[in-house]
Amino acid sequence: MPSRVQKCGSAGPPEALPDLCEAQTTGLTTRNEPYCCSDGLKDCLWPRVDVGAESRIHNFGAGPAVLPLEVVTEVAESLPNMNGSGFGLMEVSHRSPAFQEVIDSAMGRMRGILSIPDDYEVLFLQGGASTQFYMTALNLLSNGGAADFLVTGIWAKKALAEANRIGDGRAAWDDSSNGFKSVPGDGEYSVRDDAEYLHYTSNNTLFGTQFKHLPDSNGKPRVVDASSDICGAHLDVSKHELIYAGAQKNLGPSGVTVVILSPWAASRGKEGLPTMLDYQTHISKGSMFNTPNTYGIFVLDRVLSWVERNGGLEGAIQRNQKKSGLIYDMLDGSDFWKPHAGVGSRSMMNVTWRLADESLEDVFLAEAADNGMGGLKGHRSVGGIRASLYNGCPVESVEALASFMAEFESRHG
Amino acid sequence: MPSRVQKCGSAGPPEALPDLCEAQTTGLTTRNEPYCCSDGLKDCLWPRVDVGAESRIHNFGAGPAVLPLEVVTEVAESLPNMNGSGFGLMEVSHRSPAFQEVIDSAMGRMRGILSIPDDYEVLFLQGGASTQFYMTALNLLSNGGAADFLVTGIWAKKALAEANRIGDGRAAWDDSSNGFKSVPGDGEYSVRDDAEYLHYTSNNTLFGTQFKHLPDSNGKPRVVDASSDICGAHLDVSKHELIYAGAQKNLGPSGVTVVILSPWAASRGKEGLPTMLDYQTHISKGSMFNTPNTYGIFVLDRVLSWVERNGGLEGAIQRNQKKSGLIYDMLDGSDFWKPHAGVGSRSMMNVTWRLADESLEDVFLAEAADNGMGGLKGHRSVGGIRASLYNGCPVESVEALASFMAEFESRHG
Repeated sequence: MPSRVQKCGSAGPPEALPDLCEAQTTGLTTRNEPYCCSDGLKDCLWPRVDVGAESRIHNFGAGPAVLPLEVVTEVAESLPNMNGSGFGLMEVSHRSPAFQEVIDSAMGRMRGILSIPDDYEVLFLQGGASTQFYMTALNLLSNGGAADFLVTGIWAKKALAEANRIGDGRAAWDDSSNGFKSVPGDGEYSVRDDAEYLHYTSNNTLFGTQFKHLPDSNGKPRVVDASSDICGAHLDVSKHELIYAGAQKNLGPSGVTVVILSPWAASRGKEGLPTMLDYQTHISKGSMFNTPNTYGIFVLDRVLSWVERNGGLEGAIQRNQKKSGLIYDMLDGSDFWKPHAGVGSRSMMNVTWRLADESLEDVFLAEAADNGMGGLKGHRSVGGIRASLYNGCPVESVEALASFMAEFESRHG
Repeated sequence: MPSRVQKCGSAGPPEALPDLCEAQTTGLTTRNEPYCCSDGLKDCLWPRVDVGAESRIHNFGAGPAVLPLEVVTEVAESLPNMNGSGFGLMEVSHRSPAFQEVIDSAMGRMRGILSIPDDYEVLFLQGGASTQFYMTALNLLSNGGAADFLVTGIWAKKALAEANRIGDGRAAWDDSSNGFKSVPGDGEYSVRDDAEYLHYTSNNTLFGTQFKHLPDSNGKPRVVDASSDICGAHLDVSKHELIYAGAQKNLGPSGVTVVILSPWAASRGKEGLPTMLDYQTHISKGSMFNTPNTYGIFVLDRVLSWVERNGGLEGAIQRNQKKSGLIYDMLDGSDFWKPHAGVGSRSMMNVTWRLADESLEDVFLAEAADNGMGGLKGHRSVGGIRASLYNGCPVESVEALASFMAEFESRHG
């Protein structure tokens, strides 16, 4: 593990520095070279960067998740001066033409990558999927109305609980007694005739399950929490009325929530909703009723640009299939490993497993860390190991993990 | 104006690059030196940074606002690898010890700088002050209960409107007919005996007014929207029951909202509130019930560290007094300028004015831009000019503006 950032003194603000020092404070370090003031190392103004991109670990965390280094670098370069505007990336008004260009670009890319129909709305909000659990029901569900949920994990359960503050939410299917190992096939549940919509979670981050098909909704509108596989798996937007997703897995940093609404969903709003919880507020102002997470939207645009440059949605899906295949092949290769999810429900985004000898799991995690791999500890509800393989996770990280698994098994198997 | 970032081709993901190129893609550029792949400039992978920190303008925007360049640089350096953890700053789990350290640090600094009593809670939420307009009332105000508001501008008016969804909000004072030129003195309004609290806005960003005193509340709890002067002006936390502030003016980027609650405020929550709108949800989980804006909290911690290193709250106040004094002195020097705010209500954070000859205002803005000064256009509700001088705005920017004003007046006066 590399040594930590070193702080070298605490000089005054930049304007108080001698010229020689100022000239050196305007750039960004490359590596291992401290910025020095005229009178030597001990008066360095800036933290010395002796750990940088070259010391990044293979990051399998479930989110906020790894991003392409290419994007990270681009963002770092934009921080002091966004797109040559003279305003720093974090320091530009959301009312400026420079930022309007950014949010327009991000929305355009989102529409392009996901083939979002022209009459759908795209919003960039705050508060995460957890806020959408309530907000979707508040806007879409009649007071006391029925809504059905496919409960494939804890997130769906939470969405159902919030909907029950508005109406009559019901689990059309609930796999909790089976450890949430699978998603339902179409014949395994039924949607009520009076349901106003069917809600499902396209990918379950905790349990490593994922829908591979468009769930039957008995002709009712579909609402989907796509937080952990948006832009990384197939999604027919036109077959959904509302899609929401926290950005921090496939799209960017935490603090941005993407919401996509069909004309039907956009028209459902009731009178008198709290301003910030009313989709119409944000639709009418292009997601800038109040100050949005400007930085997060910039990063999201850069991530989407990266997706475009690398084969678009199909390219992302192919990479995610390849990556998850590498790990599932390992898991299926011997009884040393015990994959959690049922074969037909296996997620490309989050691969979850136990070791047959559970006492080896902590050893596995510790040795993985020693080998520069992090974020592998399974969620407490499953235990064991979880490898999250979102869009930003490079194939080489997954290859390194697969090699390590083979080597670990050969020693402990 | 510098030229824009140049994109040089769109090569594949890093793992596909030749070794020579990979070695060059791990760092951050300093200036004007493109990263080149082995086969020449036209195959550069990374955007060429030919505009950077040295081309930053003097940024007087009202928010998201200018940050200390020192902080911007530190953040950029942390992006690929946060505090030597091996995880990028945007890519670290909120459940990790590495991030727990960051949020603990930010909360500790917040407590220290503002002398927050130990039994108060500090939260880092999302959604901005606009979400707090509703959330404060939802949590604090009895259904149908009375709350009084000092309406010193549009933000207070919006807060009042949201409170009226819960109870009986009333403007104890409203200066809209006078163009919001001042804040009230204690004798100019009365708070109802049955009011459950008094709400005020400590600084009005649009109109450039600011409370210089703790408003009388008839013994009722005080709730304050301190978005635009928190940590930049005096604030006796112990005399308030709830304080909220969007971060994007004095504290960091947009997308983080600081909420400070007294034991009384923390205990007011009702049963059955929507989970994400219930302060108890966030108190009980240390602001990590769901994924917070991890990046924004990191930046906030770095900004607060910068405040500490530069004299703490008192240092910030002194600089803000000095900066605003430079501009108010100019405005008071001749009839060429027409300051908006009443003398006793003048804000240190946002200075607002018109030109006696309003037809010169566009000329002023255009010439200011030509001289490397941006964000000076007044809000449409006041018109004219607004210079926002938050903590991150360096004295040298304000000196440059004052010099430009003197020179402009000498040519056009």
